[in-house]
Amino acid sequence: MKTYKKHDFPVEKIRRFLEPGPIVLVSSRWKDETNIMTMGWHTVLEFSPSLVGCMITGSNHSFELIRKSKECVINIPTVELLDTAVAIGNCTGRNTDKFEKFGLTKESADNVQAPLIKECFANLECKLVDTRILNKYNFFIFEVLKAHAPLVPKYPKTFHYTGDGVFMISGEHINKRRKFKSQNL
Amino acid sequence: MKTYKKHDFPVEKIRRFLEPGPIVLVSSRWKDETNIMTMGWHTVLEFSPSLVGCMITGSNHSFELIRKSKECVINIPTVELLDTAVAIGNCTGRNTDKFEKFGLTKESADNVQAPLIKECFANLECKLVDTRILNKYNFFIFEVLKAHAPLVPKYPKTFHYTGDGVFMISGEHINKRRKFKSQNL
Repeated sequence: MKTYKKHDFPVEKIRRFLEPGPIVLVSSRWKDETNIMTMGWHTVLEFSPSLVGCMITGSNHSFELIRKSKECVINIPTVELLDTAVAIGNCTGRNTDKFEKFGLTKESADNVQAPLIKECFANLECKLVDTRILNKYNFFIFEVLKAHAPLVPKYPKTFHYTGDGVFMISGEHINKRRKFKSQNL
Repeated sequence: MKTYKKHDFPVEKIRRFLEPGPIVLVSSRWKDETNIMTMGWHTVLEFSPSLVGCMITGSNHSFELIRKSKECVINIPTVELLDTAVAIGNCTGRNTDKFEKFGLTKESADNVQAPLIKECFANLECKLVDTRILNKYNFFIFEVLKAHAPLVPKYPKTFHYTGDGVFMISGEHINKRRKFKSQNL
């Protein structure tokens, strides 16, 4: 499977990967147990500190692993992993090691116990920093402590969910920089 | 400018338009003043009631219009409106009528005072339902009361922001429905 040579990526710039709205794979660990879930309901909340909000359904096995460990890794998969992401989202980690089942490789993170998924384009090490609307909306607010991404390509080919089993694949990139005021870039 | 013949669209299915993560145009009204802002930081939070969370920077002129009126319309623009959306995001509504300036047409909503933008593909009439993390994160939680969208095309060609003035244009759609468990669709 395709892998990437990754470098430290500035956490205040992770909008490059998250703001376009791709499906992500969230890896977690609590004690000896690891898991992976497929997630589409997330948003950037702040540049610095680098904050991300995620809605994770309470019935997901990962929900409790993340709530208890107070951390996770948000991994950005590219289109080569589309079928894998669908399969991950359609089975439970309650009795299955999804890393083993789907041939994915755990790599150690620097700041969290949850493993990075080596085969993903980018990996964001996240710490849970706010739970005030967790009970009502299952909404976690994470701070991204460290990000890993390759230098090239600059933009991963991602997949985005529309419901009903249909995904949109990311298309071309267009630069409109000269039409921006510098403070708005 | 291109317009669409729209119908009522089920509010519990608006993930089709929002979950892929497009840039949206948010229209608002407070007393006699209307405005439009360009927004990229949003996420679906629930199917029913149909909830959407949005981070809106406090320095935006629209912030106060939305906070005071407790409503807005989330409009989904297609790629024909990319330059318009960039221009809307790079000027303030403090002294400008953006509908007039950018040749956009106000249409009356059914459930809110804020106007729909006729030229957008879809329009979501939203009511502010939770402000408990508004002060800390500028995060608004809206309920979508009514949605308007055309029957065809099923999927709009949207644009998605990556920062630095660069947009990703939505690409092809792939159906993986047969790989899903029915309850996960």
